[in-house]
Amino acid sequence: MRNSRRGAVDPFIVMDVMEEARAAEAAGRSIIHMEVGQPGTAAPRGARAHLTEAMEASPLGYSVALGLPELRARIAQHYHDKHGVNLSPERVIITSGSSGAFILAFTALFEAGARVGLGEPGYPSYRQILKALDVKPVGLPTSAENRFQPVPSDFAGLELDGLLVASPANPSGTMLTREAMQALIDACAESETAFISDEIYQGIEYEGEAVSALELTDECYVINSFSKYFSMTGWRIGWMVVPEEHVRLIERLAQNMFICAPHASQVAALAAFGCTEELEANLAVYKANRDLMIVELPKVGLSNFAPPDGAFYIYVDVSHLTNDSRALASDILAKAGVAVTPGIDFDPERGQTTLRLSYARSTEEIREGLLRLKAYFDR
Amino acid sequence: MRNSRRGAVDPFIVMDVMEEARAAEAAGRSIIHMEVGQPGTAAPRGARAHLTEAMEASPLGYSVALGLPELRARIAQHYHDKHGVNLSPERVIITSGSSGAFILAFTALFEAGARVGLGEPGYPSYRQILKALDVKPVGLPTSAENRFQPVPSDFAGLELDGLLVASPANPSGTMLTREAMQALIDACAESETAFISDEIYQGIEYEGEAVSALELTDECYVINSFSKYFSMTGWRIGWMVVPEEHVRLIERLAQNMFICAPHASQVAALAAFGCTEELEANLAVYKANRDLMIVELPKVGLSNFAPPDGAFYIYVDVSHLTNDSRALASDILAKAGVAVTPGIDFDPERGQTTLRLSYARSTEEIREGLLRLKAYFDR
Repeated sequence: MRNSRRGAVDPFIVMDVMEEARAAEAAGRSIIHMEVGQPGTAAPRGARAHLTEAMEASPLGYSVALGLPELRARIAQHYHDKHGVNLSPERVIITSGSSGAFILAFTALFEAGARVGLGEPGYPSYRQILKALDVKPVGLPTSAENRFQPVPSDFAGLELDGLLVASPANPSGTMLTREAMQALIDACAESETAFISDEIYQGIEYEGEAVSALELTDECYVINSFSKYFSMTGWRIGWMVVPEEHVRLIERLAQNMFICAPHASQVAALAAFGCTEELEANLAVYKANRDLMIVELPKVGLSNFAPPDGAFYIYVDVSHLTNDSRALASDILAKAGVAVTPGIDFDPERGQTTLRLSYARSTEEIREGLLRLKAYFDR
Repeated sequence: MRNSRRGAVDPFIVMDVMEEARAAEAAGRSIIHMEVGQPGTAAPRGARAHLTEAMEASPLGYSVALGLPELRARIAQHYHDKHGVNLSPERVIITSGSSGAFILAFTALFEAGARVGLGEPGYPSYRQILKALDVKPVGLPTSAENRFQPVPSDFAGLELDGLLVASPANPSGTMLTREAMQALIDACAESETAFISDEIYQGIEYEGEAVSALELTDECYVINSFSKYFSMTGWRIGWMVVPEEHVRLIERLAQNMFICAPHASQVAALAAFGCTEELEANLAVYKANRDLMIVELPKVGLSNFAPPDGAFYIYVDVSHLTNDSRALASDILAKAGVAVTPGIDFDPERGQTTLRLSYARSTEEIREGLLRLKAYFDR
């Protein structure tokens, strides 16, 4: 049967690692999971309890396309409380995870053939979703000096139609300072480049507070999600804030492409805002894990990384060890029983010499993982 | 801020009707809802109960991209039981509603600029999703003689890259016979046109059993959902069956574009297969409603329609009354308190003289709606 060129996107390499890890576990081995990009915890108890009640009280049929009005209002309130931004709830769009937000944003903003800049290393699906939508991803190699974030000179003269940044970033965990984000916004405004800010890891911050693009401009798309801080990955529920004049455009696209985000997930997400205690306890675990990683990884011989400001990843340089991060990850899994992600998922050019280590699981697991890594690298 | 041409899709007209109906209800009026495209019932009790348990037993994080293996296997079993088709569970892909399936299918199959045939009248989002993905929808006007389904002569010489059919269809409720579907499949095979069969209303059948395209060929995409028969619209959970050699292609797209379908919805959907008694009771209500509509509508003066084989809609010709179905729908809402959908959503060319009446709510509501319509048309 026929198939399209644009549909032939690249696989996630990490999926191969996960399959190897699963097979090893099925064969009876103990594996520490430092490859996963999600919390080990469930949605907060209060969110689950609320959904159990709501399921009996209402059919939970289609919601309106832009999402439950009370959830949109609660998210607007969150921007007021956390970022000092007064935001009309009208501009908040509930999406089927940040994945759904990317599809809506890219189709609303870009024609086939448009060019969108992406910092490398970065979340691999940016590139693949753009490709599937016939938009051209333009990789912008970032540097450790710029803490793996793009700067205006990285795309000067490239005539980009859009720029997509993430703060905190995956895989590096670094954040854009207010000044750095402002410089990117200004450069985009000058060149009529749409500015998209992926803020999915906000809330998981260790060094100062993450800046939202909405503190600096209304002329941007901001994408966020309940997956990470709210520990609701599998619920596929996120949100997007768009300029006032784009709301109707997105509404029409959302009506047709998604109908609505999962209603049950919307109900649970609203209740999750009331679960601060549990969510802050999750955060305390990530923070302890991060501190452990920062201290212990150099003892393992992995000292070349930017200390993460947020998220739950560390992106380490292993160029002194290998030119084949896929093979190294495979060897670490086989010999140490620790699953890690090779950098090639995040940076097709330079990821052969990097690994991403996730510390989203329990502190006991992270401690055990570090012991195993030490034994491996000591050999 | 910039926006794309392809993203500027048409609105759903029915949304305006729904908003008018909502405003009338907010003002204290009683409105009968014959405009809605969803059951009034919740997900089956057993599905909800199972989810309540599952939420406590597991974090319900991301599932694998193609969906829970046990759900894929259960759906394959369903094709065996209902259609006598032996299907590898590998070919079953769990999607974020049929909406997610359309996005995956269209990107996997079609380049920008490809041409996909759609019977008119038909589900309006087919056209808009195609447009958002830069694929060209080619309307195929169908006839009452062909029961509002396309036949091979409708697209002979059109050099289509794809053909999308629905059986039972929305808005007409008509089904393709085995022979009619075979003829379409053969014509597509001859012209290397991808054949996509939307079977979302299967299970809601009144006159004989719906034929699945999988009974006739493996060289097709079949799209289905838990929204209608299983009464789970808001859960955004559906499935797609693809040729064996397309599974990896779809897996890569799904990993990147959706990560996975909502995990909670997958868990609930699996349990819904065990809720036959409740689902058959829902079906009995639709059947009673349909019988009532078929008998009573002609008495109201609306006698020009194809009796629906399935789904929960009747598509009526009102050309003796109006050339402006939008205005007629608005007048019926204002004067009779019955919300109906103007045909222009389903057939941009000829829908000015048609209405779609949904009978998915309780029989009492349908009876009251018919009384009100009688009073309106008698005036």
